Amino acid sequence: MSSIIKGNKISVSVFGQSHSESIGAVIDGIPAGIEIDYDRINAFMARRAPGQSKFSTPRKEADKPEVLSGIVNSKTCGAPISIKIDNTNTRSQDYDNLKLLPRPSHSDYSAYVKFGGNNDIAGGGQFSGRLTAPLCYAGAVCSQILESKGITIKTHIFSIKDVKDEAFDLENLYDDELEFDPLFPVISRFKGERMKTVIQLAREAGDSVGGVVECAVLGMPAGIGEPMFDGIENVISKNIFGIPAIKGIEFGSGFSGTEKYGSENNDNFSVKDGKVVTVTNNHGGILGGITSGMPIVFRTAVKPTPSISIPQTSVNLKTMKEEELVIHGRHDPCIVPRAAAAIEAVTAITVLDLVL
Amino acid sequence: MSSIIKGNKISVSVFGQSHSESIGAVIDGIPAGIEIDYDRINAFMARRAPGQSKFSTPRKEADKPEVLSGIVNSKTCGAPISIKIDNTNTRSQDYDNLKLLPRPSHSDYSAYVKFGGNNDIAGGGQFSGRLTAPLCYAGAVCSQILESKGITIKTHIFSIKDVKDEAFDLENLYDDELEFDPLFPVISRFKGERMKTVIQLAREAGDSVGGVVECAVLGMPAGIGEPMFDGIENVISKNIFGIPAIKGIEFGSGFSGTEKYGSENNDNFSVKDGKVVTVTNNHGGILGGITSGMPIVFRTAVKPTPSISIPQTSVNLKTMKEEELVIHGRHDPCIVPRAAAAIEAVTAITVLDLVL
Amino acid sequence: MSSIIKGNKISVSVFGQSHSESIGAVIDGIPAGIEIDYDRINAFMARRAPGQSKFSTPRKEADKPEVLSGIVNSKTCGAPISIKIDNTNTRSQDYDNLKLLPRPSHSDYSAYVKFGGNNDIAGGGQFSGRLTAPLCYAGAVCSQILESKGITIKTHIFSIKDVKDEAFDLENLYDDELEFDPLFPVISRFKGERMKTVIQLAREAGDSVGGVVECAVLGMPAGIGEPMFDGIENVISKNIFGIPAIKGIEFGSGFSGTEKYGSENNDNFSVKDGKVVTVTNNHGGILGGITSGMPIVFRTAVKPTPSISIPQTSVNLKTMKEEELVIHGRHDPCIVPRAAAAIEAVTAITVLDLVL
Amino acid sequence: MSSIIKGNKISVSVFGQSHSESIGAVIDGIPAGIEIDYDRINAFMARRAPGQSKFSTPRKEADKPEVLSGIVNSKTCGAPISIKIDNTNTRSQDYDNLKLLPRPSHSDYSAYVKFGGNNDIAGGGQFSGRLTAPLCYAGAVCSQILESKGITIKTHIFSIKDVKDEAFDLENLYDDELEFDPLFPVISRFKGERMKTVIQLAREAGDSVGGVVECAVLGMPAGIGEPMFDGIENVISKNIFGIPAIKGIEFGSGFSGTEKYGSENNDNFSVKDGKVVTVTNNHGGILGGITSGMPIVFRTAVKPTPSISIPQTSVNLKTMKEEELVIHGRHDPCIVPRAAAAIEAVTAITVLDLVL
Repeated sequence: MSSIIKGNKISVSVFGQSHSESIGAVIDGIPAGIEIDYDRINAFMARRAPGQSKFSTPRKEADKPEVLSGIVNSKTCGAPISIKIDNTNTRSQDYDNLKLLPRPSHSDYSAYVKFGGNNDIAGGGQFSGRLTAPLCYAGAVCSQILESKGITIKTHIFSIKDVKDEAFDLENLYDDELEFDPLFPVISRFKGERMKTVIQLAREAGDSVGGVVECAVLGMPAGIGEPMFDGIENVISKNIFGIPAIKGIEFGSGFSGTEKYGSENNDNFSVKDGKVVTVTNNHGGILGGITSGMPIVFRTAVKPTPSISIPQTSVNLKTMKEEELVIHGRHDPCIVPRAAAAIEAVTAITVLDLVL
Repeated sequence: MSSIIKGNKISVSVFGQSHSESIGAVIDGIPAGIEIDYDRINAFMARRAPGQSKFSTPRKEADKPEVLSGIVNSKTCGAPISIKIDNTNTRSQDYDNLKLLPRPSHSDYSAYVKFGGNNDIAGGGQFSGRLTAPLCYAGAVCSQILESKGITIKTHIFSIKDVKDEAFDLENLYDDELEFDPLFPVISRFKGERMKTVIQLAREAGDSVGGVVECAVLGMPAGIGEPMFDGIENVISKNIFGIPAIKGIEFGSGFSGTEKYGSENNDNFSVKDGKVVTVTNNHGGILGGITSGMPIVFRTAVKPTPSISIPQTSVNLKTMKEEELVIHGRHDPCIVPRAAAAIEAVTAITVLDLVL
Repeated sequence: MSSIIKGNKISVSVFGQSHSESIGAVIDGIPAGIEIDYDRINAFMARRAPGQSKFSTPRKEADKPEVLSGIVNSKTCGAPISIKIDNTNTRSQDYDNLKLLPRPSHSDYSAYVKFGGNNDIAGGGQFSGRLTAPLCYAGAVCSQILESKGITIKTHIFSIKDVKDEAFDLENLYDDELEFDPLFPVISRFKGERMKTVIQLAREAGDSVGGVVECAVLGMPAGIGEPMFDGIENVISKNIFGIPAIKGIEFGSGFSGTEKYGSENNDNFSVKDGKVVTVTNNHGGILGGITSGMPIVFRTAVKPTPSISIPQTSVNLKTMKEEELVIHGRHDPCIVPRAAAAIEAVTAITVLDLVL
Repeated sequence: MSSIIKGNKISVSVFGQSHSESIGAVIDGIPAGIEIDYDRINAFMARRAPGQSKFSTPRKEADKPEVLSGIVNSKTCGAPISIKIDNTNTRSQDYDNLKLLPRPSHSDYSAYVKFGGNNDIAGGGQFSGRLTAPLCYAGAVCSQILESKGITIKTHIFSIKDVKDEAFDLENLYDDELEFDPLFPVISRFKGERMKTVIQLAREAGDSVGGVVECAVLGMPAGIGEPMFDGIENVISKNIFGIPAIKGIEFGSGFSGTEKYGSENNDNFSVKDGKVVTVTNNHGGILGGITSGMPIVFRTAVKPTPSISIPQTSVNLKTMKEEELVIHGRHDPCIVPRAAAAIEAVTAITVLDLVL
C-alpha cells in the first residue's frame, strides 16, 4: 500500500499512471459544507502544469479535472471527494526502448525488481511526476480551508543549482506585498533571472538541474503536534518524500544549524503583541515535534531531473550487458518550479489534517 | 498518540519521562524463536549511555534494562517484548526554576501550551533524550535479526560543527576493517581528534555544538519499499525525526545533489558479480521509494544541544515579561555521538519492519 | 476518514454517492502481474446488481465498471487499480421531501447532524447500498487471487426473517457439488422457496424483511492472524460492519455457543490425512485470533431494509414537530441476497490481505 | 503487531504473558491535567479480579498495578501512562503437559503453528485472560474522563447459558437507581440467582458455561462516527474481539432484528425535551455508522471457558496421535462476570477515542 496520505482526519488516495486512462485522487475527510472555489483550484493546478513556459517541458497536458463525487452544488457534502484527470496526448512509443534498459536515477530498475517486470513503464508509470496533479487538486482544496482558519503557506524557489534566492526572513514572511510569480516564485527577481539562465543553459546542453524549495506555514497556533513519532517534522517529511525527486528535508536552520554553537542556534524568547514569540526562528516553528506559534519553515531538496538527452550507461536486463542509453522524448530540464506547487499542496494536506 | 513507531509488522511503544519511576518500551511483532544476545544489547546501549567520556554529560545513568515479558529462556516467544529501565540519580530540583521560564529551543514552551502547563518538566519530561535508551534496546534486538539476514548498518559522525569526517564511499562501506570506536565513531581518526577539540572548547565556554550523523544500510535487497507515501525515505524520515534534536535528513547526494547537473548526479548502471549495480550512489540506494540494491545512505542533522550555561533570554509565562535565564545542572556539550546510536537503532527498527 | 478498508498490504478506498457523477474504488496493494478475468468480475458484480429478479428493487443499474488505472493489457501492473461506475437512471426528485424529514432507521438523521445538513440525501448519498458495487469489484479481484492460492469463500443465505436455511456443516462445506444459485444462494432449495415467499409477501405489504448471511472461508492455512486486537475476528468484523445494514456478526457457534456447556462447545482435536483437525468447528476456524486450519465460519445479521412504503413517523428538523412520512420510490423488500455478495467481497479483500 | 488498541487519539499497548515477570499497558493519548482517582481504578479492577467469589477461579491474583510513568502528583502530564502488574502466585508446572498436547478450543494449537512452538504456553501465555487486567486499568482511566463529559457505560450480564436477565430498556437505562452488584451485575436479582446456580452446577461437574454481556453507552451526542469502515460498530467490534473468548457481537436488535419486519424494526422519530429521539432503539444508537444520540447498545457472546476438568481428546503434536487430555489446575467455570468488566473497559477506551 503506497499511494495514500493517511492522516488522522484526512486521507488522500492517489491513482493512475502516466499513460493510463486517467489519473486522480480520492480525498476523504474534508469537512462538509465547504464552498469550493474552482477558480482557485485551477490557479493552483496551473502552477504545476507543464508546457506553460520555456523553463519546463513542451508537453502540454490538458489536465482538466472532473469531479466524480463529494461535491454537490459546489459544496462539499461530507462524502469523499473524488476527481479524475484523463490522460491525453501520450506518446507511449517514446518509452519502448526503456522496458529492458532502465534509465539511470529513475525508478525503472527498482520498480522492475519489485513488480517482476510487470510495471507500467510508459511515461514513468505510477512514478511519474504527473501523479502530483491530483495531489495539487487536493492541496488546493485544503489550502482554501486553511486560509479560512487564518493559516497560509508561502513557497518559493530557494535555489536552482548553485544560484540561491534570498531566504525567508521573519520580516518578509508576513509581508502581504510578498506576492510570488506563480510560475516561478522567488523573492529576488534578480536571482530569479539568473536561475532561469541556468535552466536555459542546461536545456541547451541536453542536461538538467535541481534545486531547493522553501516553504513557510504562517498562522499556525502553538501547541499543535505530538512528541516523538507523530510530531510535525515526522508527518511533514513522511508526506513530502511522497513527491518524486525529493531527496532531503530540513526544518528551521536544519543542516546549517549544525555548524553553529548552541548559543547562536538557540532562539531566545520575547513578547510581541502580548504573545510569546522567539527573536529568531532557527527552530523552524517546531520544538519537540510541537508548534511553537512561530512560522513552520522547511526546505526540501529536489534532485536534477533524471531524464536528460545526454547519452548514459545502463544495463540490458535481459542480456545483463552494459548498453548506451539515449532518452528521447520531451523532457523538463528543471522540475523545481512545478515541484514547488506539489510541495505546497502536500504541506496543505498535512497541515489541515493537523489542525482539524 | 505519539510515542509509537508503527510499522506493518513491528511497533515500538516508548514510555516514560526523564524523572518518572521508569522508562521503557513495548516491542511488538518480533518473530518468535529469536535467541537474544544480551551482551550485544548491552554493548549497543553503552554507545548511547552518558557519562562515559568527557565528551558527554557527567550525569551517570545506571540504565539497567529489565525484561518484563516476551522473552522466555533467552528466546522470544512471540508476545510483545517489554522492558523497563528505572530512573535513578535524578535531581528534580535542578528544574524548578524552569516551570514558568521555558528554555530556548527546548520543548518547554510548546509542551506547556499543548499540555496546559501539566507537562512534566523535570529533566525534559517525555521529551528527554533519555527516552532514546529504550529505543536503543529495541534497535539492538532488531539489529541482531537483521544481521542474521545479511543486513548491517554502519553509522559514523559525519561532522561536528564545521569539522567534517570523510564521507562513506562505495569502497570503504564494505570494508570489514572499518570498525568504529563505538563511543566516537569516525572514519578518520585525525578528524575525530579535531571534533573532540571542538566539543571540549564548547564545554569550556558553557556552550554546545551539533553535527551530522551518516548512516549506511548494507545488504538490502532490491525491490523493497513502495511508491509514493510508503517509500523508504518516507518511513525512515518519519521515524528518525522522532529522535530529539533531529532537524534534517537527506538521502544519497541530498542537498548537495541539487547543485549538480543531472548528468553528474545520475548514477549509471553497471554489472558487478552478475548483479546490477550503479557506478555511483547519489540516489542513496533508493529510487522511486524502492531499494535499488545499493546501500541505503542518509545523513541527519543534529542541532547543537539547547541546554547551555550561557545566560539566555526567556519569557516568564505568568508575568509575560522577559527574564534572563541561566540553566544550571549537568549538560552535554554535544549529543551527536550518543544520537548516532539512537539513529542507528531507529534505522534498524524501520528496516527490519521493511524486510519482514 | 471513513471509506477505506485499510489492511497491511491491501487498501480499498471507496468513493461516490448514490446520485453523484460516478462511484468507484481505488484498490491499492494488489500484486503485479495478475491476469484479470473480467468475466468473473462481471459474474461477481451481477450477484449484487439490482433489478434482476422480483426479489429485489426494480431499479436497474447499468453498473458498467470502467478501469481508470492499474491494469495494462489485462494484467495488474502494481499501481493502484482504480475503477469507476457512472451513475445513471437516478431520480433525485424522489428524495426531495426527505431533506428535513429523516427516514426512520436510515442514516439521514445521524448524517444530518454530523455533516450539518450538507450531506447528499439523494438516493442515500454516500450511505447508499450502491457503494457496495465497487466493493464487489475489489472483492472479485481478490477472490481470483485467493483461489490461485487454494482459498475459496462460500456464502449462502442462512435465513430470511424466521425461515432458516440449513447451516454449513463440515461435510457439505467441502462438497464441490455445493453450487449456489448466484442470485439466491441457499443450501436447501425447499427453504429457498419459502424465503422467496416471505419476501414476496413483504413486498406486497409495502414492508421489508432482513436475514442472516453465512460465510465460510476454505483452505486457510493454520497460524494466520494475531493475538488480541489484530486477530481474524477483529479485522473481519471491522470491515464487514462497513456494509450498510449489518448489525451483528458471530464466529463459529457464536451466540448459540453461549448456551452450551464448555464440554459441548469445545472442539476436540483429531488427525485427518496427516493434518491436525478438530472434530467439530464451534470455534469457526479461529482460536486466539489465529486460524486453526479449519474453515473460518461466520454469520452476519442484515437488518430489514429500512425503506418501506408503510407510513411512518418522523420529525421535521426545522419545525421540530412530528410528521407522517411516506417514502415513495423504488425499494428493495429484502437486500439479503445482494448483501451476501458484498459480504463475500469484503471477506475476500480482508482474507487476501491476511495471507499476502 | 497485535496487542495495540489504536485509535485516532488514544492507543493502548498491552504487554505480558500469564507467567512473565509482569504484565502491563502503555496508554498513550490521555489528555494532560486529568486528576486520577485511584480508588475508582481499584474498584474497576476488582470487578475483573479473580478469586473473589465462588463463581470464579480460586486463584487469587495480587494485581497491584504500579504506575511507571505519565502521572505526576496524581495528575496526567501528557506523556504515555504506563503501568505494570507483577505476576506472582504462578504455578507453571500445571502447564507442563500441555506443550505438545493442545487444549481444545484454547489458542494452544494455533499459537503453536504461528510461533513455531516458541510461544509461552504457561498459563495461556499472551492469550491469557490475565491480559485484560491492564486493559481494565486503561478502561478505568478512560471511564473517568468520559463521565466528566456526561457519558456513562452500563454493563450487565445478559445471560448465563440459557438463563436470561431482563434486557436494558429505554426506561431502566437512565434509571440512576440501576446500580449493579459489581461482581455479578444483573438487572433482575432473581435471574441472577438462577445464573449463579447454573455456574455452580457446571463447576461441580468439572464443566463450564458462557453467556452474553450487554453494554449501553449513555450520553453520546449525535453525529459521532464515520460512514462505512470507521463507523461506531466497526471500531467497537474490532476492539471488543480483542478480549479472549468473545465470539459474537450485535448492535441494537442485532440478530433478533433480522426476524422482524422492517415496519417493526424501524425506529420512528419523536421529540423529547426539545431533542430528536427515537421511540424504540432497535438501531442501538447507531445509524450509518454514526451515533443518533440514542444510547449505544450492544451485546457480546462470551463462549464457555475452554478449560474444563472433563477429559477431552487432543492430538500429540510430536507423535501426531490422539491422546486423552485432562486439564489440571485452577479453572474458572464461568468468566462472564469478569469479562463484563473487560468489555466495559474496552468500550470506554474506544468511546473516549471517538469523542476526544
